[in-house]
This record gives sequence, structure tokens and C-alpha cells, in this order.
Amino acid sequence: MSLNIQVTRTQHPKEKPDPNHLGFGDFFTDHMFVMNYTEGQGWHDPRIIPYAPISLEPAAMVFHYAQEMFEGMKAYKAPDGRVLLFRPDKNIARANNSNDRLCIPQIPEEDMLQAIKAIVAEDKDWIPEGKATSLYIRPFIIATDAHLGVRPSRTYQFYVILSPVGAYYKEGLNPVKIYVEDEYVRAVKGGMGHVKTGGNYAASIKAQMIAAERGYTQVLWLDGVHRRYIEEVGTMNVFFVIDDEVVTPALNGSILPGVTRDSAICMLKSWGIKVSERQIAIDELFEAAKEGRLREAFGTGTAAVISPIGELNWEGNIAPINGGAIGEISQKLYDNLTGIQLGLIPDTFGWTVEI
Amino acid sequence: MSLNIQVTRTQHPKEKPDPNHLGFGDFFTDHMFVMNYTEGQGWHDPRIIPYAPISLEPAAMVFHYAQEMFEGMKAYKAPDGRVLLFRPDKNIARANNSNDRLCIPQIPEEDMLQAIKAIVAEDKDWIPEGKATSLYIRPFIIATDAHLGVRPSRTYQFYVILSPVGAYYKEGLNPVKIYVEDEYVRAVKGGMGHVKTGGNYAASIKAQMIAAERGYTQVLWLDGVHRRYIEEVGTMNVFFVIDDEVVTPALNGSILPGVTRDSAICMLKSWGIKVSERQIAIDELFEAAKEGRLREAFGTGTAAVISPIGELNWEGNIAPINGGAIGEISQKLYDNLTGIQLGLIPDTFGWTVEI
Ligand SMILES: Cc1ncc(COP(=O)(O)O)c(C=O)c1O
Ligand SMILES: Cc1ncc(COP(=O)(O)O)c(C=O)c1O
Repeated sequence: MSLNIQVTRTQHPKEKPDPNHLGFGDFFTDHMFVMNYTEGQGWHDPRIIPYAPISLEPAAMVFHYAQEMFEGMKAYKAPDGRVLLFRPDKNIARANNSNDRLCIPQIPEEDMLQAIKAIVAEDKDWIPEGKATSLYIRPFIIATDAHLGVRPSRTYQFYVILSPVGAYYKEGLNPVKIYVEDEYVRAVKGGMGHVKTGGNYAASIKAQMIAAERGYTQVLWLDGVHRRYIEEVGTMNVFFVIDDEVVTPALNGSILPGVTRDSAICMLKSWGIKVSERQIAIDELFEAAKEGRLREAFGTGTAAVISPIGELNWEGNIAPINGGAIGEISQKLYDNLTGIQLGLIPDTFGWTVEI
Repeated sequence: MSLNIQVTRTQHPKEKPDPNHLGFGDFFTDHMFVMNYTEGQGWHDPRIIPYAPISLEPAAMVFHYAQEMFEGMKAYKAPDGRVLLFRPDKNIARANNSNDRLCIPQIPEEDMLQAIKAIVAEDKDWIPEGKATSLYIRPFIIATDAHLGVRPSRTYQFYVILSPVGAYYKEGLNPVKIYVEDEYVRAVKGGMGHVKTGGNYAASIKAQMIAAERGYTQVLWLDGVHRRYIEEVGTMNVFFVIDDEVVTPALNGSILPGVTRDSAICMLKSWGIKVSERQIAIDELFEAAKEGRLREAFGTGTAAVISPIGELNWEGNIAPINGGAIGEISQKLYDNLTGIQLGLIPDTFGWTVEI
């Protein structure tokens, strides 16, 4: 059974933003997808309506207990006019995994995909076509019971909003400087680090601000137990090229299983490059850097796709990487991933889904 | 300088709920306090308006990144008609501590107190007078920038809403059964456990649900590093009477510094009882229980004040406490704390603040 989506079109289409000055996450399209959940009734009233403010009780649980989840993915317009999604099944499975951890009711996978396709199709004229631009898709669910006291909500709202975006980091593909955080912790095993929910990001802002004051774009998180093993970066998973091997932290329960991470691993392996998912100690990394064996470092994430890392700062020790320039593997991954996403090169992995 | 609070009264006062069936956190008074923050301008437009839905952009950061904080305190009506707050200075200081951790701008302490007093005074007829009832006060701040991308918001809204409440647990003063959680973790040092923010509660719901299915009212959290040391319970700090000593976990950076916890410690000490704030291993506790030295256990928190614990379950080992009955110290603390809060006995500690 598929959703019976009611569509109400805007009477006041907005002017589209200048594709050369999109920034990230500041503009929103004409419509949004909404669906409600009521205990006993399930998800109901799927609809596309004009993008407009949400009205909620001040006591709505999302404001107090952050029972909320979100996803992030992109739609691209191929040169031949096709509208492409990148591995939406992965985001949708992760969404339901987040729901499970947060006691939010599941949304059937095919319904979520239908909702995403429908709203992107509705606002497809908003997909920008400039270099490094795309339409960012933000599905999210919020707990809406007006209740003070900790328990799962009995009502929810599911939204999909769309934002035409440019580069996530002002650096673009220029390497970013990363600060290794040794005071604050983002998440710990048994917590929520492996799912996509607001609390993880609220926990991260302070360290990010401190790093920014010191001239660093992002923080690299260490694990909360030993304060020694590398986890991930702000909104990216992280990879290192040491000697002839690519290493990335294993999915240990406290880092997000990134879709871009998985895609990068698949792609690297398809090129015959050795990839290890394992524990990586920060001292091991700095040792490798000192010995000249740390050849590249990069983050992976939907927003920036591949973001080369040009410098790490760990307690005042500086590890410059590849002379602050983008590395060969980072560049090749970026070219091939974005090539597939944008429909510029053949998708031999079967990752893209046409709308 | 004090706030110049504009007051708009409701034209449709609501009917007050039956004081015998208040439950907790389901009814709200006629008005609320609101104040806005805008970067460059600071906090502005303090006002009391009718309690009504909030309208926010779907992209409002609170929905995505849970940049939000809250407090919880109570107002009581004394038999002589005085309206009393309990140690509001402690909640206000903690609020700003939460703000600091979450990169939310501070609210001057005197302004927050003025706001709380003003809204409680406005709706003082809503303070219920039945046994174990009070007016629960919920100040909270939410991040309102319409922006996707992790950074501190540049705009916020501060609210104070009020809810006439009865007992938090349906058990009332009857001891609750507590499940010691060994899989999920609430918070870890370096995270946000020591402040009051939605993410901590989102992280806790799942374990709470699993405990409830097993017939337990709440979970007792262990630390996220060793999975061995006792932290706190759902929305309460936790105390144990072992031999002739009262022990409670030290404030270690991952548990909330409860106002009731601090008050209980002061009061116990004033009675000449030895109190230790220290690390408590769960195995030590079960050892003490086995040897018959664990005489009482109770939680402390604004919602329930004192909540006796009648049983602990740790990996299937059951520790019954005081034959499932409320202990002497728990009862005495409850009587004296609520006595002071309700203005029934002299406040020798100087804790109550009259409105
Ligand atoms: C914390 C965190 N880690 C990693 C990622 C990368 O995941 P993905 O590649 O699915 O975008 C993201 C962003 O989406 C994130 O928020
Ligand atoms: C996690 C947590 N711990 C402890 C407490 C007890 O704090 P207080 O005594 O200030 O209410 C609360 C509730 O307020 C809480 O939410």
C-alpha cells in the first residue's frame, strides 16, 4: 500500500535564491511534506503543503526532551535532466534505526521513500545546477505531545523540507584544519552517537566554538571512555591514508554509520585499495604523521561529500598533512562520488535512484 | 535594571482541573512568560501573554540540533496564603550553567527570577492546594534560527510555563522498584549530563521503556566509562543509607546537581547524620544489601521530592530494601522538605522565597 498524498500548492511561489550565493541551509523551497502520527491510529494524513511555520504547544515534548530525529541527503540534477537521489535506502534504514533508539514509531521504508520522492518532484525546479550545488533534503520527526514528564510521546509529526545548497564549508575542496578535542565528548557507547538525533549535535556545539576561536574549522572527537580512540568529525566520518592503507574508525556504537563513509569504503575497495575499519589511537596517528607515513586525511559526509583535512592539532602538537593540499585519493574519491551523484559518470554501483 | 514586562491577559480563562486528578504535566495555566533573544540586541520584549501555541519555522534549529535547555521548580501555597518558591536561586544558577554548556546566551539571574515571580503571581489562583500538589514551573529556552547546519543559533526564545501537578509517580510515597541499567548509558563526563537539556532525556527513554516492560518504575544509571559506578535515576539523584551513613554519588560531571539533592544533604547534616558524596560501585551496593547493611534507598528531585526505593534489580539479582517500605530517614526528609516548601514548619535554612 502506498501513501495517498494530498497536495496543496502554494499561491505565492518564492523567488529562487542566487545559485552562486546559496550558502548551506538558509533557503527553503515552496513546499514541504508532512505526516502525523497518533497512538492507536499510526501515521496518517500524508500531505504536501506550502512551506510554512509549524504551530506547537509550548509544552510539546520536543522542546523539553529532544525526542527528535533527522536525516540528511541530497537530490541532484543530471546534465540530461534526470533528478537523482543517492542511496536513499541507506538514509531511510538509518532513520528507522534512529527512531528505534528514540522510541519514535517506525515509518515503513517504502512510505518514507515515496514521501521524499514526492516532495522533491514537487519542488524539482529548486534543484540548483551550479558547481557543487544540490538540493539538500531534510526529513525529520518531532515529538508533539503537550506533556511535562519523561516518557515517549504519543503523537509525532514527520516533515521533509528542502534547501538548495552550495558548499558546506567555506573552504570548499580546500583542506580544513581540525582540532582534536580532549575535554568535551560527543557520545559514548550505550548512548545515541550511532543515530541521528538533535542531542548529539547540541553536545557538540561548544567544542566546535572553542575550536573556531582557535582558527579550526571542526573538531575531531575522541572516544568518551579512553579519550584516546578517534571517533569522527563534526558532521563527517573520518579517513586516514597511512602508508598504502586507508584506515577509518570501525562502527563501534558511538559514531554515525555515514552513507558517504560506506560509499567511500566500497569505492576504495573497488579500486583495489586496502581499507581497514578499526580502532585508531590518536597517538598512533600522530606517530605516523611524525614518521611521514600519514599521507592523507579526509572527512566524508553528505554535506561536503569529501572534505580534505590539511592539519590536525592535538594538545598543541601540529600534524600538517600533505603540505596542506588535497591528496590524490581524496580528490579521486570526490571526483568519482560526485560524478556518480550528479550523473556525470556511469553508476557501476547502482547507487543512484531516479525520481 | 529590571525587566519591563508587558502583560496581555487572556480573554478566555480556562476551567481549572480537578485538584484530585491532576497527574503531572498535563494541564497548563492561563498565561506564559516569553522573552526573545536576537544576536546584537540581547534578550528583549519580556511579556506575559495567554498560554498559546508557538509558531516556528520547520527549519528552527531546536527541531534538528536540540539546542534547548529547561529547568523545573515548584510554587506552593502556604496555609496562611503566602506563595512560596523553593531555592529559585539554585535553579537559576543551574539554568545559566546549562546555557553555558549549550552556547545559549545567559539570562541575568535577577531577570530570570523576576520573570518567574511575575508569571507565578499572574496565575497564582492556579496553585492547587490538595495533598502533594503544587504548581510546577517550567522555564525553557529554544534555538529558533531557521538554519540547517550545526552552529549556535543567533535567535532564541525563553518561556516560562506553569502546570498544576499532583504526584509524579503513581506510587506517591510508596517505594518504587528500580532497574539497574547495564546496556544503555545516559551521559558521560565531557558530555551534557551535568546540565538540564533535552538530549539527556531523549537518550534515557529507551531504557526506561524496557524497565517498565519488566515492571520497574525507573532505571538507575551506571557510569558510561566503567559501567560500574552509580550515577542517578531517571529524573532524580539517588541516596543510600548504608549502616549509619548516608551515601550519594559525588558530582562528577555526568550527573545533574539536583537542588533537592543539595537540600537533602544540608538537612541530613543539620541532623548530625554523616553524609558522604563519593563514588559508589554497584557491586558494593549489592554486597551491602546482601549483608543487611543497606537500610534505605531513595531518590531526590523536584517532581517527587523524596521517592523511596523498595527494590533494585541488577542483572537479575534482586535487592529488596527495608522490606519494600519507606525508611525512617526517607520519611523524615520528605516531611521536613515538604514542610518547609509548603510553609508548614519554620524554614531555618532560609530556602523559601515569598512572591
Ligand atoms: C555526526 C555525523 N557523522 C557523520 C556524518 C556523515 O554521514 P553521511 O555520510 O550519511 O552524511 C554525519 C552527517 O550526516 C554526521 O552528522
Ligand atoms: C536527570 C535529573 N537528575 C536529577 C534531578 C533532580 O534535580 P532537582 O532536585 O533539582 O529537581 C532531575 C530533575 O530535576 C533530573 O532531571
